[in-house]
Amino acid sequence: MAVYTDVSDEDLDRFLADYDLGEVLAFKGIAEGVENSNYLLRTDKSSYILTLYEKRVDPNDLPFFLGLMNHLAKGGFACPQPVENRDGAILGTLSDRPAAIVTFLEGRWPKRPNVDHCLALGKAMARMHMAGEGFEITRKNSLTVDGWPDLIEATADDANDVHPGLKSLIATSYDELNGAWPRDLPKGTIHADLFPDNVFFLRENLSGFIDFYFACNDLLAYDIAISLNAWCFETDGMFNVTKAKALVSGYQSVRSLSVEEYEALPILARGAALRFLLTRLYDWIRVPEGALVTPHDPLEYVRKLKFHRSVATTSAYGL
Amino acid sequence: MAVYTDVSDEDLDRFLADYDLGEVLAFKGIAEGVENSNYLLRTDKSSYILTLYEKRVDPNDLPFFLGLMNHLAKGGFACPQPVENRDGAILGTLSDRPAAIVTFLEGRWPKRPNVDHCLALGKAMARMHMAGEGFEITRKNSLTVDGWPDLIEATADDANDVHPGLKSLIATSYDELNGAWPRDLPKGTIHADLFPDNVFFLRENLSGFIDFYFACNDLLAYDIAISLNAWCFETDGMFNVTKAKALVSGYQSVRSLSVEEYEALPILARGAALRFLLTRLYDWIRVPEGALVTPHDPLEYVRKLKFHRSVATTSAYGL
Repeated sequence: MAVYTDVSDEDLDRFLADYDLGEVLAFKGIAEGVENSNYLLRTDKSSYILTLYEKRVDPNDLPFFLGLMNHLAKGGFACPQPVENRDGAILGTLSDRPAAIVTFLEGRWPKRPNVDHCLALGKAMARMHMAGEGFEITRKNSLTVDGWPDLIEATADDANDVHPGLKSLIATSYDELNGAWPRDLPKGTIHADLFPDNVFFLRENLSGFIDFYFACNDLLAYDIAISLNAWCFETDGMFNVTKAKALVSGYQSVRSLSVEEYEALPILARGAALRFLLTRLYDWIRVPEGALVTPHDPLEYVRKLKFHRSVATTSAYGL
Repeated sequence: MAVYTDVSDEDLDRFLADYDLGEVLAFKGIAEGVENSNYLLRTDKSSYILTLYEKRVDPNDLPFFLGLMNHLAKGGFACPQPVENRDGAILGTLSDRPAAIVTFLEGRWPKRPNVDHCLALGKAMARMHMAGEGFEITRKNSLTVDGWPDLIEATADDANDVHPGLKSLIATSYDELNGAWPRDLPKGTIHADLFPDNVFFLRENLSGFIDFYFACNDLLAYDIAISLNAWCFETDGMFNVTKAKALVSGYQSVRSLSVEEYEALPILARGAALRFLLTRLYDWIRVPEGALVTPHDPLEYVRKLKFHRSVATTSAYGL
């Protein structure tokens, strides 16, 4: 479910006439991602991904997202690189949507991440953070602590219907986090959505990151916290310390965490759990009855939030 | 919306271990087709489509569908060709589903078919009918005249809610068609679903047919009748005689229609309109409220059925 806009041949040909990509051999909608329409574009020169940005993406953010991919790729970090048309533009209009073409990143995302995947992820995340230095456009993170009150208000009336006691768990957690949030940690450009489906591997080697459409300027360690949630819990809900250790030590082998960053991990991980709980809850409440697309289960993040609330220090994780 | 089954890396690697396709460079769900889960599989040797057959496909029909594609491709007709594993099998099991790998057919389907597309379609359809000769497996068409009573019964109670008078239009049309159906016309293996999205072009040249999952043994001219409905009406509902002429003359340039086949076209076209009206009506009635996937509008085929009922002879079409 990731093609919302059909593209006619005429529109595509007109759009591609401004590029120098060769003859189109195939153009197929891809069932990945949920925010935008993604097409595989194969020409006699190479393969590309063509993305039409749908209404959940603010067009004003596109120069940041595309510029960041360009900056990272030019700095040697493996990610899709926006393709310039003959005028040097990387953003155009197709079928009345903002649209861009990026290079095709080879690899597959790991459906069942193991310890080696987590180690590689940590290393690559740190490389990405360093490669992001010098990128001049900025974008505020609307999904960190200052952005949560809006989501809390929008979900408050329905929270307890989804899970008993959820409204108060959210309110209490927010108050704790707002008071304790480590706002002065090292900042930079973060991916902010490094779930397994955004990290590609070829055999055992990490081949790159995709989907930078939540990227923003925020605490670098918040990226680690998001991935601790996304990669280090088993399907039975247990936190896998070995994976978490691999992730953090992989990261530190490239970029050392300050003592403050290291000590902030439980608060940041708790915040990351609240962030995904809130957006999943928001989507869950709004899904039409009988819809064929099931949103992610918010309860997974209720359990993760509760776990992180039980952890007082980073060493208590076993890290 | 065409990936219903997720495939883990471990399952995929185990499945591919029986093949000799090289290293996997990419594996992406494709948002095409509605019956099965389709993945683009790219290896260092070539590109393929991997299909998992979901519950709407009867596994007993798969040897027919895959065998037909194999027979046609080996006979020089351009279509995806099933890939044999090391044991010579073209059908296996992946993630608890029947699964097969076929070669990747280059091209794009025409979003706005023109007269040249219709001419090429007619020629290729006739070539397919001839290439199908000698294929030994058979499959009855459950969606021709003998299969309609079940669909009529299943939709009768709701038909008038969808469109006033629809129940009686369907009943009358069926009675007329059942009496007049030309059961003795030349038979063979037909595609039975030659809509534009199943016919690929590279530049102006037809590059092949895909999606043989409605193929069956039936009247050859029924394929023409289906395509007259699918390709020769404009979006405003007008029948485009120029396109219909191109389609039929393209067909005849490869395989001549008998007088009986030619004269039967209005009845067959009326029947094809009723067939798609019934299946669309069936799906329309059953779609869950608020579903994110909109089924095809049955009223399009109400209009087409009414048009064909107004046509007494093939020459009255202007053919």
